[in-house]
Amino acid sequence: MGDTLGRMFRVTSFGESHGRCVGVVVEGCPAGLRLQEQDIQRELDRRKPGKNNLSTGRVEEDRVEIMSGVFNGYTTGAPICMLVWNKDVGSTEYERIRSTPRPGHADLTAPIRYGGFNDYRGSGRFSGRITAGFVMAGALAKQLLGQLEIVVAAHTVEVAGIRARKRNLAEIMENASRDPLGCADPDASVRMMVAIRRAAQEGDSVGGVIECIAVNVPPGVGDPVFDTLEGDIAKALFAIPGTKAAEFGSGFSGSRMKGSENNDPFTVMNGKIVAQTNNAGGILGGLSTGMPIVCRAAVKPTASISKPQKTVDLSEMKDTYVETRGRHDPCIVPRAIPVVESVVAVILADHLIRSGHIERVLKVNR
Amino acid sequence: MGDTLGRMFRVTSFGESHGRCVGVVVEGCPAGLRLQEQDIQRELDRRKPGKNNLSTGRVEEDRVEIMSGVFNGYTTGAPICMLVWNKDVGSTEYERIRSTPRPGHADLTAPIRYGGFNDYRGSGRFSGRITAGFVMAGALAKQLLGQLEIVVAAHTVEVAGIRARKRNLAEIMENASRDPLGCADPDASVRMMVAIRRAAQEGDSVGGVIECIAVNVPPGVGDPVFDTLEGDIAKALFAIPGTKAAEFGSGFSGSRMKGSENNDPFTVMNGKIVAQTNNAGGILGGLSTGMPIVCRAAVKPTASISKPQKTVDLSEMKDTYVETRGRHDPCIVPRAIPVVESVVAVILADHLIRSGHIERVLKVNR
Amino acid sequence: MGDTLGRMFRVTSFGESHGRCVGVVVEGCPAGLRLQEQDIQRELDRRKPGKNNLSTGRVEEDRVEIMSGVFNGYTTGAPICMLVWNKDVGSTEYERIRSTPRPGHADLTAPIRYGGFNDYRGSGRFSGRITAGFVMAGALAKQLLGQLEIVVAAHTVEVAGIRARKRNLAEIMENASRDPLGCADPDASVRMMVAIRRAAQEGDSVGGVIECIAVNVPPGVGDPVFDTLEGDIAKALFAIPGTKAAEFGSGFSGSRMKGSENNDPFTVMNGKIVAQTNNAGGILGGLSTGMPIVCRAAVKPTASISKPQKTVDLSEMKDTYVETRGRHDPCIVPRAIPVVESVVAVILADHLIRSGHIERVLKVNR
Amino acid sequence: MGDTLGRMFRVTSFGESHGRCVGVVVEGCPAGLRLQEQDIQRELDRRKPGKNNLSTGRVEEDRVEIMSGVFNGYTTGAPICMLVWNKDVGSTEYERIRSTPRPGHADLTAPIRYGGFNDYRGSGRFSGRITAGFVMAGALAKQLLGQLEIVVAAHTVEVAGIRARKRNLAEIMENASRDPLGCADPDASVRMMVAIRRAAQEGDSVGGVIECIAVNVPPGVGDPVFDTLEGDIAKALFAIPGTKAAEFGSGFSGSRMKGSENNDPFTVMNGKIVAQTNNAGGILGGLSTGMPIVCRAAVKPTASISKPQKTVDLSEMKDTYVETRGRHDPCIVPRAIPVVESVVAVILADHLIRSGHIERVLKVNR
Repeated sequence: MGDTLGRMFRVTSFGESHGRCVGVVVEGCPAGLRLQEQDIQRELDRRKPGKNNLSTGRVEEDRVEIMSGVFNGYTTGAPICMLVWNKDVGSTEYERIRSTPRPGHADLTAPIRYGGFNDYRGSGRFSGRITAGFVMAGALAKQLLGQLEIVVAAHTVEVAGIRARKRNLAEIMENASRDPLGCADPDASVRMMVAIRRAAQEGDSVGGVIECIAVNVPPGVGDPVFDTLEGDIAKALFAIPGTKAAEFGSGFSGSRMKGSENNDPFTVMNGKIVAQTNNAGGILGGLSTGMPIVCRAAVKPTASISKPQKTVDLSEMKDTYVETRGRHDPCIVPRAIPVVESVVAVILADHLIRSGHIERVLKVNR
Repeated sequence: MGDTLGRMFRVTSFGESHGRCVGVVVEGCPAGLRLQEQDIQRELDRRKPGKNNLSTGRVEEDRVEIMSGVFNGYTTGAPICMLVWNKDVGSTEYERIRSTPRPGHADLTAPIRYGGFNDYRGSGRFSGRITAGFVMAGALAKQLLGQLEIVVAAHTVEVAGIRARKRNLAEIMENASRDPLGCADPDASVRMMVAIRRAAQEGDSVGGVIECIAVNVPPGVGDPVFDTLEGDIAKALFAIPGTKAAEFGSGFSGSRMKGSENNDPFTVMNGKIVAQTNNAGGILGGLSTGMPIVCRAAVKPTASISKPQKTVDLSEMKDTYVETRGRHDPCIVPRAIPVVESVVAVILADHLIRSGHIERVLKVNR
Repeated sequence: MGDTLGRMFRVTSFGESHGRCVGVVVEGCPAGLRLQEQDIQRELDRRKPGKNNLSTGRVEEDRVEIMSGVFNGYTTGAPICMLVWNKDVGSTEYERIRSTPRPGHADLTAPIRYGGFNDYRGSGRFSGRITAGFVMAGALAKQLLGQLEIVVAAHTVEVAGIRARKRNLAEIMENASRDPLGCADPDASVRMMVAIRRAAQEGDSVGGVIECIAVNVPPGVGDPVFDTLEGDIAKALFAIPGTKAAEFGSGFSGSRMKGSENNDPFTVMNGKIVAQTNNAGGILGGLSTGMPIVCRAAVKPTASISKPQKTVDLSEMKDTYVETRGRHDPCIVPRAIPVVESVVAVILADHLIRSGHIERVLKVNR
Repeated sequence: MGDTLGRMFRVTSFGESHGRCVGVVVEGCPAGLRLQEQDIQRELDRRKPGKNNLSTGRVEEDRVEIMSGVFNGYTTGAPICMLVWNKDVGSTEYERIRSTPRPGHADLTAPIRYGGFNDYRGSGRFSGRITAGFVMAGALAKQLLGQLEIVVAAHTVEVAGIRARKRNLAEIMENASRDPLGCADPDASVRMMVAIRRAAQEGDSVGGVIECIAVNVPPGVGDPVFDTLEGDIAKALFAIPGTKAAEFGSGFSGSRMKGSENNDPFTVMNGKIVAQTNNAGGILGGLSTGMPIVCRAAVKPTASISKPQKTVDLSEMKDTYVETRGRHDPCIVPRAIPVVESVVAVILADHLIRSGHIERVLKVNR
C-alpha cells in the first residue's frame, strides 16, 4: 500500500530498480489532452544521469512507452499506463550488501517491513530510480497545467551549504534551465560544483535545497482542513528519496519574524488585489492565494558513499565496515529538480480537477 | 473535501469556530480499547487557552462528549464521534472584517473557494479552534499507542528566534510538561516569555518551532513510496493552522552535511542493532527504524495582531488598514504542542493498524 | 472501517441503535445550497414508524439537528454533521438475547468481528435505525439533485409475493406517496396489507421488493470500470439491512431474453436520440443513458419475529428456542422506501459532482 | 476515475480492447506469496475464447507478463503489475459503427462522457476484454485465499431461461469444471447448448445466471455499514460487462418467504454452531457467518448480435439499422465464470487483509 497519490488525478507507482521496468498508472486525467511520447520523454531526459560528469555512470536509456489511455494523440479519459524498461542492470554488487546494511538506506528496515521478501537489488522499491515514474506522471500533469498557463519550475538554491543569491522569477526561469546544477545563480553554481567534485574525490557526498515555484495557480485552490496545498505538496515531496524537510514561503525563517513582518499586506494593483510580499508562499489557510506557490525541499547528502562506514555484519552480529561501490551521484540535487517539479505538478493537477478549474473533458480545438 | 485523514484509522473533522460545535468522527479504532471521557478531556485541557496569561481570553470550557462508538467503557469498533460545544462566541467583530481581509488569514481566499458562502465568523473552518477535534482524535490515538508503550511528546524548541538548548529525552519529558511554554530548557523559556510579552505589548506576535518525538515505534512501520512516515506526518502537521515548514531528524541542517556525517552508523548494542546517531529522525526509506521518530514544525507568528496592517477595502477596492481586535494569542506555539502530538499520534496509529502491529480487536483483560 | 460512502460527496455514518444518537457527516456538499432543517425533517418523517399501525411501536421523535456546515440558511462547503438523538430506548430485552442469537441477525457474527465489544443493544450498529443517518444524507443529496431537476422516487412493487401491476411514472409518483405501503397499485396494496397483518398475527414477517426510479439524470454520468452506476448504487442498497438482491432494468428477467429483445433500440424523437425501451434501466457500460434509472432491491422478511425459532444457547452450547419480543415491523418494506431513495440519491450526487454536472459552488440567486 | 477496486488489496485496471495491452496493478498483496506466471496463466486460459465453438473467433494468446512485485518466485509486498498484450486486433469494422450506435452498448453514452475522445475500437475501455485484468488480479487473490484454504468456485445455473438442477457443493466442484458451459447439471447443459446454438444461428444471443460459492471464509469478515460483503461483492460483479443483477442466498425468492422460513436456524453440530439452512448466503449484517458465501449474477444476452437492430444514424439524425458483424459470443456466460470468481476473490482478499486474517507478510516455509 501507499503506492498511490492523489484523489481525482491519481498516480499509482509500480516497478523496482532492478526489476523489468519502472512505471506508473495515472487515473483521472481528463480526456482531450494532446499527448505525445516526446512530451513525456523531454522531462525524463532532464532526470537522466550522465549529463554533467557528476552523476552515476548507469546508462538508463529510459524511453517512455505509453501503454494505454492515449488514442489518436489525445488522452481518452482512461487510465494512462506509462513505463520505462530497466536495461543497464548489474545486481551482483547488491548481494554482498545484504549482510552489511548501508547507513542512511532502508537496507535494515525494508526486510523487517517485508519479512525479507523485498527485492533488495539496487534498493528495489526504495531506489531513486522509482522517481522516473513520478516524472512521467509529472510530465502529464504539466501538460495539463499548461491548459491554465500554469508553469512549475524548480531550481537549486543550496548545495553543500552554499546558497544561491535570490533571483527574480524571470532570472530563475532563464538561468536555471541552462545551468548544469539547475541553479539560477551562476557564481554560486560554480562553487557548488567545486564542492560536489571535492566530495566525490573524498568518496563522500553532499546535499542541498531545491526550491519549486508554480505561477498562475488561480486563487482558492486547495481544501481545508487536511488536504491543504501545503500538506499535499509536502507529502508528495517526501516521496522523493532523500527529502528530509519541506517549507513554504518564509518557512522556518518566518517563524523567527514578527507577525507584522511575516504577514503579507494586501494592496490594489491594476484593479486587482495582490499581496505585497509572499511570505505565505502563495498559500493561506491551505488555499492558493493567487501569488506564486513557493516551496523548498531539503535533500540529504547521498547515502551511498564509497568511504568506509561503520555498520553491522548481520550474519555474525558484530560491527564491521561497508563501502558502497557501484555508481552513485555525489549529489542528487540536480537530478531531483524535475522530480520535485513533477510531484508538485501532480498535486496541483489533482486539486485543480477537484476544484473544477480543469474539467474532465478538455475543451480543445481538434 | 479534505476533511479526512488516515486510511485505516480515519479521522473526519467537522464544525466551525463560531458554529454549534467542533467535532470529529474516528473510524477504524480497534474494539476493546479502554476509553473514558477523562482520557480525552485531559488532552483537551492541555490545549485550553488562559493557562499562562499569554493566550486568548476566550473562555472555552471544551467538555468532550463522546457521542458514539464506546460502550461499557470500551471502544466497540464502531465510529467514535466526539465533540465540544462552542459557547463563548462573540461574532459581531467579524462582520466588520469581512470587507477588510486580514493579512496572513484566508479572509480573501476562502470566499473565492466557497463562493462567499463560507462561515467567516472567527475564521470559521480555518480557525485554530478546529484543532480541538484533532486533539480529541489524538487523545484516542495516544491511548491506542499506549498498548505498544509508544509515547508521543512535543516540546517548544524555539520561540521568536530564541532556541532551547538540546536536552535528552528524559529531560524533555520531565521539563516540558511543567513549563508554561512547553519548553524543556527553563532558561530559554524565560527569555521566550519575555519576547512573547514584548510582542503582545506592541500589538504584535511571534512564532516558533515545535519538536515532536515518538519513542518505541517498532521498526518497519510505514509504506513506500507515497505513504511514507515523513509524508504522512508532514501532511498532518500542515493541517495545523500556522504551520509553514516540517523537517525530520537533521532536516535542513542535514542537507548541509557530508554523507559521511549525516548517515547514522549502525552498531550492535546489547545484541540489538542500533544507530549511533539519529540524523534520520527515526525514518529511512519512509519506514521507521526503531530509533525515536523526531520531527519539527515551524509555526508562523500569529496572523491576528492588533497593530494596524495594510489591506484592501473590498467594497471600495482601495487600500486601507485593518486592526484585529478581539482575543488572540501573541504566540500559539504553547497551545499547538498537544495538537502536534495529536496529529503525529493519529498518523502512527493509522500506520500501526495498517502494519498489523495494532489488531482490529485488542487483546485485553476485562 | 466501512462507515463511509462516496468519493466526492462522502457520507460517514456514526451512532448506534441504543447509544446517544444516530448521525452522519457529509463531506463535499457544494457551497450555496439552500438548506433548512425542515428539508431534512420531511424525509426523516417519511421513515418514521407508527404511521400505519404496521410498524414498531417504538416512538422515535427523530428531530434532526444540523451541527455544522450550514450558515445563514445555505451550505458553506464545510462538512455537514446531522444527527437525531435516541430517546425511546429500552435495552433490558437485549441482555437476554445475547446468549441466544436470533436467526437472521448478526448476533453471532458481530461479537466475532468485534471480540465481543460491540454494542449489542437493539443490534447496535447493525440496526435498521442506522438508516436514519442515510435518510438525512439522502435528503441533502435530493436537495442537491433538485438543482438539476432530478427526481428520485421509490415505491413498493412486491410484498409477500404479491406484485403490483406496472404503472407509468406519473401514476407511480401520484399514487405511491399516498399509499400506506408506498405502492402505486391500490388493489395490490390492499392485498399486501392483508398479508402483512396475517403475518403479524402469526408472529411472523414478510419481505418484498422496492423499485427506485431516478429521472432527468443526464447521459454519460458514471465511471468505468469499477465505479459503475450499477455497482455504486448496488453497494449502497446493500447497506440497508435486509437487502439481499439488487437488479437494474430488466435484471434477472433480462437474462432470460434474447439479445434482440433485451437491447433497447435507439430512435429519434423530437430531434433527440432516445431508447424505445428501457431494459438497460438507464445504464449502459456503467454510464447513465439519459433514460430513467431503474433499480430494484429485494428486502428479506424482517428477521425479528415473535414466533419461537431454533437457536443455540451459547452458555451451554445446546439447542434451544428464542422469541423476539419487543417492537418490530412485520414488514419493513414501506419504511425502507425513503432509505432506498436516499442511498440512490447519495450515489447520484457523488457521481454528478465527479462529472462536473454539479459544481463545487452552486450558482444561486440570493 | 473508477479504475480501482479494494481498500487494502487494491486492483487498478488499465488498457483498452484494441490498444497495446490490458493490464492491472495490484497494491497491498502481502509479501511472501509463492507466485509464478503459470498460476496466473491457468486462470487466464479458463477465460479464453474458442474452447467450445461457441465463443468469438478472436484468437487471444493472452500470455501474462508479470512486470513487477515478484522476486525469486515470491511476492515482495510491492505493487504487482501484470499485463497481456493485444495481438489479434482488427479495428476497421468499428469505424463504421461510430455513426450508428449499437443498442445495448455504451456507443452513445461513452462519447458523451469522454467528449468523443474515448478509444471506441472494440468498445475500448467498455469491452469484455478488460476482464482479462480482473482475472489476473483474481488469480493472485485466489492464490492468497489458498493460504486460508478458501476456495471460490462459480458455475452456470441458468442459460436462456433453462435452469440447472440444484447440486451439492461436491458435485458442483466436480461437474462444472469439466462442462463446456461450466454447468454442474449435465442434462441442463445439453439443453443450454442447444439454445445457444439456436440463438447463434438466428444471429441472436442469450444470457444467463452464474452462481459463485466461497467456502471456508471465516466468520466475522466484512465491515458495516457500507463496506458490507454483499455491497462490495455486488459492486465488483457489476464491473463485469453485461451484469444487470446480483443476489445473495435466497435473494429475490427470499423476499417472498416468511421470516420463519427465510431465517436460518442455528444448531450445534460437532461442538460448533452452524446454520441449518443458508438463505443468508453466508452473510448476515454484512459479515460472513462461516457458512458458504453464495451469490448469483444475472448476465444479459450479449449485446452484439448480427441481426439487424433499430438505431440512429448520428450523422443524419434519422432512424436506421445496424448489424454487428465481427466475432462475438452468442452467450458470454461460460467465459464470465472465471471473471466472476476473480472479482469475488479480490473482494474476499481485501476484506481478509482488513480483518487481519491475512497478514501483510505471509508466514511461509522457504
